[in-house]
Amino acid sequence: MPANKYHWEDFAVGQVRELGTVTPTREEIIAFASQFDPQPFHLDNEAAKASVFGGLCASGWHTCAMAMRLIVTHFLQDTFSLGSPGLESLKWLKPVFPGDTLRLQVTVLETKPMSRHPDVGMTRNLWEMFNQRGDKVLHMDGWSMFRRRTPASAV
Amino acid sequence: MPANKYHWEDFAVGQVRELGTVTPTREEIIAFASQFDPQPFHLDNEAAKASVFGGLCASGWHTCAMAMRLIVTHFLQDTFSLGSPGLESLKWLKPVFPGDTLRLQVTVLETKPMSRHPDVGMTRNLWEMFNQRGDKVLHMDGWSMFRRRTPASAV
Repeated sequence: MPANKYHWEDFAVGQVRELGTVTPTREEIIAFASQFDPQPFHLDNEAAKASVFGGLCASGWHTCAMAMRLIVTHFLQDTFSLGSPGLESLKWLKPVFPGDTLRLQVTVLETKPMSRHPDVGMTRNLWEMFNQRGDKVLHMDGWSMFRRRTPASAV
Repeated sequence: MPANKYHWEDFAVGQVRELGTVTPTREEIIAFASQFDPQPFHLDNEAAKASVFGGLCASGWHTCAMAMRLIVTHFLQDTFSLGSPGLESLKWLKPVFPGDTLRLQVTVLETKPMSRHPDVGMTRNLWEMFNQRGDKVLHMDGWSMFRRRTPASAV
């Protein structure tokens, strides 16, 4: 792998990255929901119009998955990413409708070494997705693990 | 819709529901990752063997989506579900490998009315997925919204 990929040491609190956009179609929203979240407001126009959402909208898990795809394509593939242990919080703030264009912005909130693994460091990041109207639709605060360029000294 | 569907009033703290099992195949894991989380350890056997996970494993978002499918099929379709505002926390505790059989258990942690919407109530639930070895692979603490059978009196 190229030596110029990002390691844990390359992350600093306050860094903000714009990681591209995605525009889900009605067909993609229905395909995801049919497989993983077959509730009427994700599948059927008429049922969705009568729902609290006012129209057919994406599963929240689909929105998370689309955010993940953006971060992998536009950033993680250039890092020594080692996965994630989880999230501190997740908020689905607004429905995502077919044709909405969502942009992802990721901000580094915290970095710390991983005590049990001297060659791994953690970063805590805020993931925010906004639609074309500027409304925030997704707010996630979660952890990522990265290889360290310089492992901590064994104690 | 049948009147005997579950409303918000039917949830009580401490209720535990077993909501079935799912066994993802290698092909399903690769298909999800190809679309939403194309990191080497979710796509390629050899790269995954060399990774911290020790073998090809499912995207954490795929695990969440599989849990969602179980709760919709085995429970939410019998309720007046109104979606979710988000999660308090989410932990991916162990990798999910092809052929693992995951069972979902959901426990009601808290219920409260929704002050802004007299006809909606919220429940906070613990979602736990365990594999066939009894290891917990997913731990989520999140909110769901349901229609109330009896709306709060307008003040």
